[in-house]
Amino acid sequence: MEDQSLKPIRCKAAVCRASGKPLTVEEIVVDPPKDYEIRIRIICTSLCHTDVTLWRVKEDPAKPSLFPRILGHEAYGVVESVGRYVQGFGAGDAVVPTFLGQCDSCSSCASDWTNQCTAVPLTMGPGMRRDGTTRFWDSQGAPLNDMIAVSSFSQYTVVDVNQVVKVDPAVPPKLACLLSCGGGTGVGAAWRLAKVQPGSSVAVFGLGSVGLAVVQGAKMCGASKIIGVDLNPDKEEVGKSFGVTDFVNPSQLGEKSVSEVINAMTDGGAEYCFECIGISSVMTEAVRSTKSGKGKTIILGLEQDGQPLCLPSFEFLFGKCVMGSLFGGIKPKTDIPILAKKCMNKELELEKLVTHEVDLQEINTAFDLLLQGKSLRCIIWMDK
Amino acid sequence: MEDQSLKPIRCKAAVCRASGKPLTVEEIVVDPPKDYEIRIRIICTSLCHTDVTLWRVKEDPAKPSLFPRILGHEAYGVVESVGRYVQGFGAGDAVVPTFLGQCDSCSSCASDWTNQCTAVPLTMGPGMRRDGTTRFWDSQGAPLNDMIAVSSFSQYTVVDVNQVVKVDPAVPPKLACLLSCGGGTGVGAAWRLAKVQPGSSVAVFGLGSVGLAVVQGAKMCGASKIIGVDLNPDKEEVGKSFGVTDFVNPSQLGEKSVSEVINAMTDGGAEYCFECIGISSVMTEAVRSTKSGKGKTIILGLEQDGQPLCLPSFEFLFGKCVMGSLFGGIKPKTDIPILAKKCMNKELELEKLVTHEVDLQEINTAFDLLLQGKSLRCIIWMDK
Repeated sequence: MEDQSLKPIRCKAAVCRASGKPLTVEEIVVDPPKDYEIRIRIICTSLCHTDVTLWRVKEDPAKPSLFPRILGHEAYGVVESVGRYVQGFGAGDAVVPTFLGQCDSCSSCASDWTNQCTAVPLTMGPGMRRDGTTRFWDSQGAPLNDMIAVSSFSQYTVVDVNQVVKVDPAVPPKLACLLSCGGGTGVGAAWRLAKVQPGSSVAVFGLGSVGLAVVQGAKMCGASKIIGVDLNPDKEEVGKSFGVTDFVNPSQLGEKSVSEVINAMTDGGAEYCFECIGISSVMTEAVRSTKSGKGKTIILGLEQDGQPLCLPSFEFLFGKCVMGSLFGGIKPKTDIPILAKKCMNKELELEKLVTHEVDLQEINTAFDLLLQGKSLRCIIWMDK
Repeated sequence: MEDQSLKPIRCKAAVCRASGKPLTVEEIVVDPPKDYEIRIRIICTSLCHTDVTLWRVKEDPAKPSLFPRILGHEAYGVVESVGRYVQGFGAGDAVVPTFLGQCDSCSSCASDWTNQCTAVPLTMGPGMRRDGTTRFWDSQGAPLNDMIAVSSFSQYTVVDVNQVVKVDPAVPPKLACLLSCGGGTGVGAAWRLAKVQPGSSVAVFGLGSVGLAVVQGAKMCGASKIIGVDLNPDKEEVGKSFGVTDFVNPSQLGEKSVSEVINAMTDGGAEYCFECIGISSVMTEAVRSTKSGKGKTIILGLEQDGQPLCLPSFEFLFGKCVMGSLFGGIKPKTDIPILAKKCMNKELELEKLVTHEVDLQEINTAFDLLLQGKSLRCIIWMDK
């Protein structure tokens, strides 16, 4: 077989040609990695709500078109080739690409206070972060945009070395894939951002993938009470299988608000509340459900209607804190290998997040399942 | 002289007989301390905005009247006598009373995460915290309400042992007095709550007493850039004498917003912003002025019009934090002695907060000066 290193590769990818339209599986061309880049053969990827958000995004006529675009950012793969100045990676390494980079040399990477590398910072627009260009071309030679410089809905992708994390090849591909975004975000939010203390009380609003990963993270940190809040009664059983100790269904509380019920269950409020839905009024209830004097509310959901979070300022004055962070505050290269180990020794059990698996050809089924609320994570196997 | 210990004491106090009316200096009777209480001879006290807020408060006809009431909570004094079960204090000890207690035995006091003692928690309504009763009586024998269980506008007051902090008698009374509320709150907000890092950038919105104390706290923590924000141009010079390195007057920015200007001055935002005014829109600008990925906004002002703090939730998602705390997060018994030492060795310079001094008889002048914006802190000497 010819060595494809540093030559373009032809492969299949799911291309989103217009906002909200089904993806088309096409033959594309992937450029070789540039000096500080790594080309990865994607083994499996999964569909995250952020993919759906960027799939649906409305075009701004005043700006260059976002489409056609290769979505996908939660994935696992193997290094195919590396750019000239890449150190520490070689062909065959098991890796996960991540939307957030870590250079380990800037002041932000040196700080334990932020996980946002400022040397090669996150950008939302298409284009590789060092030069703004794309590595993808369609069969007609027209450029295809990337998504947050990851684009894992392709059999091969090119990612900046700062955004590639080496993982133990013994870690099951599906687990490593989950850690590269949703699983890492949820567990990280409890572990790194909130720093949940042993014996504490936690409430998780919304038991989707990220919320259930928060539950696992809180359990891993030793929380003694983990209250799951969801309108869907089926989530009680699912939540308990992840570590939820108490379940609250807001539609079954009569005249009482969720915060009144949680305050009563936790002697005046939970120490930590996590909003994993993205609804302004739920965020407010989450803050009200935390303990005065020390309660932390962690915002993980992107508000669905662009509504602001509104809070009486005295909620803060009496000692509360509202915080958020990309990727749950984890530093990808430092923390994903730690979390992978915790998965291997069963301190963390994220496997159950995978409710469905499809091949690349069926990728639109993954969208249907997520949009219908039928799946938590649907793994997409890329070799077919 | 007769030993007054454990007998009622007759002394003078400034009594607020109705909302917003001038205080009247009257002869009152102060009960002896109960089992867990300390009677303190107040040497000096100062006027804080919270006194003004509670002086102005409108009565709720459905509730018991708040007045007549003895206001005041920022003070320095000497122990006159102690209750039966009080340990570690004796007559003659130099002390400051504090509105927040510290029992050093509850789980909250044991935690480094909150300063709100849960054994004898803060209550806002009149009444001592263990039994809800008063220790003050007017010359006709009618009860006088306390204020947050401190009531320092009296020559003698009775305070729960949890709310009394022993200080080195070498600390000048005025300085110790300032540490017991406003100075402690401002310095503490930078030091204990925000944990300002050396070399970092800080913006302080509102250069009143608390804001200037924040400036001193940030300087003490080693901040390299301290931006003062105030509409009053005179505050530039005052601010710089406290440690402000750059001054921004929002009325002199033309089309630009304060956050745009601060973002430009700090390479994308200050690491810490402190809102020390209490205006919802300023709180929002403060959050916008912090650095994405790590910026902390500390809310110290009580919103003047009851407006909520409204923020786009994505401000949080990209890694920001909004927090507040009573007393700037300091634990009174642990931290006030540390801050007193820092005042003594000039690491902290709070003396300049004292712009005026009056005797008890002139206490209404202290109100006038504060209401007219002419004073920062006015010390009220209690022996005349």
